[in-house]
Amino acid sequence: MGTLSGNGAITGIGETEYSRNSGRSSTALQMEASLKAISDAGLSPKDIDGVIPYATGDTVAEDFITNFGLPDLRFSATTPLGGASVLASVQAAICAVDCGVANHVLIPIGRNGASGVGGRIGNRVQHLPQFRVVGEFEMPLGQIAPAQLYAHMARRHMEIYGTTSEQLGEIAVTIRQHALLNDNAIMTKPMTLDDHQNSRIISDPLRLNDCCLESDGGAAIIVSSAERSKDMAQTPIYVMGIAEGHPDSPSTITQRPDMTTLGTAKAAPVAFEMAGVKHSEIDVAEIYDCFSYIVLCQLEDLGFCKKGEGGAFVQDGRIRLGGELPVNTHGGLLSQAHMIGLNHVVELVKQLRGQAGRAQVQDAEIGLVTGYGDMGDGAVAILRR
Amino acid sequence: MGTLSGNGAITGIGETEYSRNSGRSSTALQMEASLKAISDAGLSPKDIDGVIPYATGDTVAEDFITNFGLPDLRFSATTPLGGASVLASVQAAICAVDCGVANHVLIPIGRNGASGVGGRIGNRVQHLPQFRVVGEFEMPLGQIAPAQLYAHMARRHMEIYGTTSEQLGEIAVTIRQHALLNDNAIMTKPMTLDDHQNSRIISDPLRLNDCCLESDGGAAIIVSSAERSKDMAQTPIYVMGIAEGHPDSPSTITQRPDMTTLGTAKAAPVAFEMAGVKHSEIDVAEIYDCFSYIVLCQLEDLGFCKKGEGGAFVQDGRIRLGGELPVNTHGGLLSQAHMIGLNHVVELVKQLRGQAGRAQVQDAEIGLVTGYGDMGDGAVAILRR
Repeated sequence: MGTLSGNGAITGIGETEYSRNSGRSSTALQMEASLKAISDAGLSPKDIDGVIPYATGDTVAEDFITNFGLPDLRFSATTPLGGASVLASVQAAICAVDCGVANHVLIPIGRNGASGVGGRIGNRVQHLPQFRVVGEFEMPLGQIAPAQLYAHMARRHMEIYGTTSEQLGEIAVTIRQHALLNDNAIMTKPMTLDDHQNSRIISDPLRLNDCCLESDGGAAIIVSSAERSKDMAQTPIYVMGIAEGHPDSPSTITQRPDMTTLGTAKAAPVAFEMAGVKHSEIDVAEIYDCFSYIVLCQLEDLGFCKKGEGGAFVQDGRIRLGGELPVNTHGGLLSQAHMIGLNHVVELVKQLRGQAGRAQVQDAEIGLVTGYGDMGDGAVAILRR
Repeated sequence: MGTLSGNGAITGIGETEYSRNSGRSSTALQMEASLKAISDAGLSPKDIDGVIPYATGDTVAEDFITNFGLPDLRFSATTPLGGASVLASVQAAICAVDCGVANHVLIPIGRNGASGVGGRIGNRVQHLPQFRVVGEFEMPLGQIAPAQLYAHMARRHMEIYGTTSEQLGEIAVTIRQHALLNDNAIMTKPMTLDDHQNSRIISDPLRLNDCCLESDGGAAIIVSSAERSKDMAQTPIYVMGIAEGHPDSPSTITQRPDMTTLGTAKAAPVAFEMAGVKHSEIDVAEIYDCFSYIVLCQLEDLGFCKKGEGGAFVQDGRIRLGGELPVNTHGGLLSQAHMIGLNHVVELVKQLRGQAGRAQVQDAEIGLVTGYGDMGDGAVAILRR
């Protein structure tokens, strides 16, 4: 029995163009991204012997056998944690490569949520047991859209801690500013705090500009053992700490004993201890941002500030490029694209490789990335070049 | 990077009563089985920090937080490999405990397939991507039931190798005979080869008595690290070799380049090599038996006999208790209950602990268990006390 710290590395990354009208299936999109990640890692498809597809997506591991001719798939699983799935998949992948079950595990995401059927309200997804957990008490009251469910959390935080809509706006504006530096971001228009404040209410207190995008695109990463990664094409980006955390029972949003704390609060201390890293050492953070509020809440649960102080923390440019803790340097789910946070992992790898272009954080060496899922699940990873 | 061999152990087992009319939800059934497994391992629910629910079942890991109050769930995943899922889950669980991500991983199954909605044709399951892979070419022709799909495989084997319905019958009769020794088996009437031959054709060449049961019940196991298992309540049953294997593209049954070889043929050599065990050392084998033919085919793919010789192998009492390789000493899916093969794992653990009652194989020390999924996936584990 050991520890995962430093035993696994992200050795390949790939992304398609992100758009709102790809005209392509989610399978085709993730196959393109996967081939790019495989090639980036200096591998060929036949080297892939592990696949972890997105749990509520359209593909299964067997689709990668069919499309790529994988000769010897030895590890396949999924991690049904909503937006925390990607990092839970990274954790499972490192376990697999560390134990010698697989050499190179592919983690792909493909979505045509903007032009296709949409993920959430689709015929299939609403029958999944996850969906029951998410809104068991809210959906019978007509609250079926994520914005309706997340509004409860944001409102509670405002009531208890005096958090303001302008503070949520600062998050949205910052992340948009970062998106403008990224040629592969869907949102290309600048956003001011006034724009945010004037955007319509979707579900009080969440405004249009507090909500993430639906989008078309694909992203993929390759996880390999640290040992193998030394001889591969790219600078290995080591996973120094990683953990998933789940809220206490019950999981449905409005019935949680504490509506302003996420599973992230359980995952963060585990990941930081595993990594042996202090908060002040984090050079850049890619924080899951399905809604602006969720960034604020995670910053607290991660321990960057105390509970209730997230609103003050995000002000004064602290989370902007050049600030103390640059957040979502790619534009996030809010302004780049919704790839279930796999785009956050891709961006952090770029940052630590020094390939982040105009959004590069100088000398970035240690970074943090999070995932957050509708059931309250949080996941945290700390990466190092 | 290491090997899994001997690093993980099955430390707890639990089963409900198996029936055709439980009047209970699949969730309730798997909670009961889970509590029994936890208690069998000498643990309490709060010790469980990993859960791997069945991928196409009704529960998610969060349901175990809600029902058991798990305080610190650190590993959750699913393995969507149909009937090979259980062993793929064991593989993933050992990876997790070996890497220190979790201490004790619960793998539960609950079904009310006989009295409830039924698994396969249910509203939800047919929307899953697995379902597309299984019958993409067959379902448009009206072949939607498993028996229709598996009949193709059995017929092909008969055409090429001269396998007979009587040889399939020998498998069904043997497994029924074993079920009669088990107080928790649904089938309680003896079956003769004549009974098998006179049972009606479901999908040629498969007769009623070649097909497994639908049933109500729950089963569960606990996987812990070998290190921890030494101080636990039961004799640890170590996992010496384990692997999953997938057929080459495409996965849909009638379009496979070789319809008479399963993913098992890829998994078996990996599992045997990892375990460092010879076929002659296997004292007892619990072989996934959704259909009698699948037992025959796996015996070949596992290497107990050559391809095409499975029909001859199962004759002359070789797979009966007292024979060279006793198979499905509990009654299997064919005559005990359909618990997606988790009942096979439970039975093998009982055999190796010496708790198998009237079906006990004397001095059983090393045993083999398999899983097989509709997409062609095979999984093999070799356990040792």
